[in-house]
Amino acid sequence: MNEKKYPVVSSPRDSRFLNLRSLQTHRGRSRTQLFIVEGIRHVARAVEHHALIDSLFLDPSVLSNPFGQELAQRLRQAGVPGIRLSSELYRDLTLATEPQGIGAILRQRWFPLEHLKPARDSLWLAVESIQSPGHLGTIIRTAEAAGVTGVLFLDPDFDPYDPAMVRATMGSLFSQEFVRCSVQDFFRWARSNAISVLASSPSGLMDYKTLACRFPAALIVGSEKHGLSDQSLEFADFVVRIPMHGSCDSLNAAVAAGVLLFEMAAQRKQ
Amino acid sequence: MNEKKYPVVSSPRDSRFLNLRSLQTHRGRSRTQLFIVEGIRHVARAVEHHALIDSLFLDPSVLSNPFGQELAQRLRQAGVPGIRLSSELYRDLTLATEPQGIGAILRQRWFPLEHLKPARDSLWLAVESIQSPGHLGTIIRTAEAAGVTGVLFLDPDFDPYDPAMVRATMGSLFSQEFVRCSVQDFFRWARSNAISVLASSPSGLMDYKTLACRFPAALIVGSEKHGLSDQSLEFADFVVRIPMHGSCDSLNAAVAAGVLLFEMAAQRKQ
Repeated sequence: MNEKKYPVVSSPRDSRFLNLRSLQTHRGRSRTQLFIVEGIRHVARAVEHHALIDSLFLDPSVLSNPFGQELAQRLRQAGVPGIRLSSELYRDLTLATEPQGIGAILRQRWFPLEHLKPARDSLWLAVESIQSPGHLGTIIRTAEAAGVTGVLFLDPDFDPYDPAMVRATMGSLFSQEFVRCSVQDFFRWARSNAISVLASSPSGLMDYKTLACRFPAALIVGSEKHGLSDQSLEFADFVVRIPMHGSCDSLNAAVAAGVLLFEMAAQRKQ
Repeated sequence: MNEKKYPVVSSPRDSRFLNLRSLQTHRGRSRTQLFIVEGIRHVARAVEHHALIDSLFLDPSVLSNPFGQELAQRLRQAGVPGIRLSSELYRDLTLATEPQGIGAILRQRWFPLEHLKPARDSLWLAVESIQSPGHLGTIIRTAEAAGVTGVLFLDPDFDPYDPAMVRATMGSLFSQEFVRCSVQDFFRWARSNAISVLASSPSGLMDYKTLACRFPAALIVGSEKHGLSDQSLEFADFVVRIPMHGSCDSLNAAVAAGVLLFEMAAQRKQ
């Protein structure tokens, strides 16, 4: 392997390291519109989906996987700038228990709502509020698997480029269109594009299995603790319920989203 | 509130605290067959499901919720022994970011496999291997909601009473029958009780939606990374596939279990 040409950074005060570190904060990400991914899978999927790669950071001492080494070499030869970090500094940047020695700074991608033209049978996900970045990441990973075209974040402060969220997507965030808009704008967009919006609530009158979903369609999900706002429940075209046994009153947010999205995806195929 | 009669424990060397701490370890739990729960919801659900409560531990300084206070009082009056811990010691025992000031030591419940007589339309879950206690807890919570009667753990070293797993169940572990047995014993039991065993794998030939499930039925789940063993895939009556879009090759283990269990539960109702 020949990563030798990337400069070595080993001081925690080096500005290149400080730049990387600032991307662990919401403020740093929103100021620069950049974010960090770590691990071979994430970097490979970023490349595959033509994500805009700003630069690489490596820890060659742990980058032992041949595919990872080749990936780093290929990117370097393609002119992507990069640095080699000491193991200590590299560890400081990742949430992984077993860091893989390759990470990248990527440019955030946001689509303007008015450019989103939903195809006739497309499926969308709108996130009103999810507290845990891990849950949100799992929901986005699930959405990709179910065939969702794009994710609309209905809170201006929402940051889907949080490292814990990025990590939980397992690399699924590159294939989807991310949009930030208000709840009102989302419902206006859905209405003007004839998208049926599905919400779920323990008080929904209809079992989710009995719904024959029209397409294009969107699922809107709310907070783990409090569910959707009254406003969203009122605006939604359908409010369904996932029937539960025992004294169970709720499902994990990602599991609930998975059950609903896969049911919608299966109806689309029919 | 009158918890005054429980003795105060504030030294980390007090044997009553050391006993509690030992239950955070696998060794301590398997030696005593006890485990710990923390939080109002967990303790309330333990009471509701007649779990065997060995003793309580409280931190009255944070137990401000009236329902929680009443619960503690009721249990004390019913003769359940307990201690009051200093906030520092209490915090040391819980994974909660906001401890609720009430926890309990409970007796583990294991059913012998030969006593499990599956009802005609019952649904079961068998866990071959799941690494993350958090994933396992979420799967057990999902299983309760889907109406699973019992969970069979197919690994003798498996410890579903790990605090992180208990926490992720959100109190769903009390309504289900827990069994520990080998993979071979599970399939023997399934066969002799005419239980159809469903497995899922990316290489499954059948879309899970096309399967008409016979009951009683069991879903068998494998490790997040490696899936099910060849042996289990061979022994299972059906190997289905959850169709995935994009370059997605897997789902979160709890999401996959949720999609399959809720599909099975819906077929049972029909």
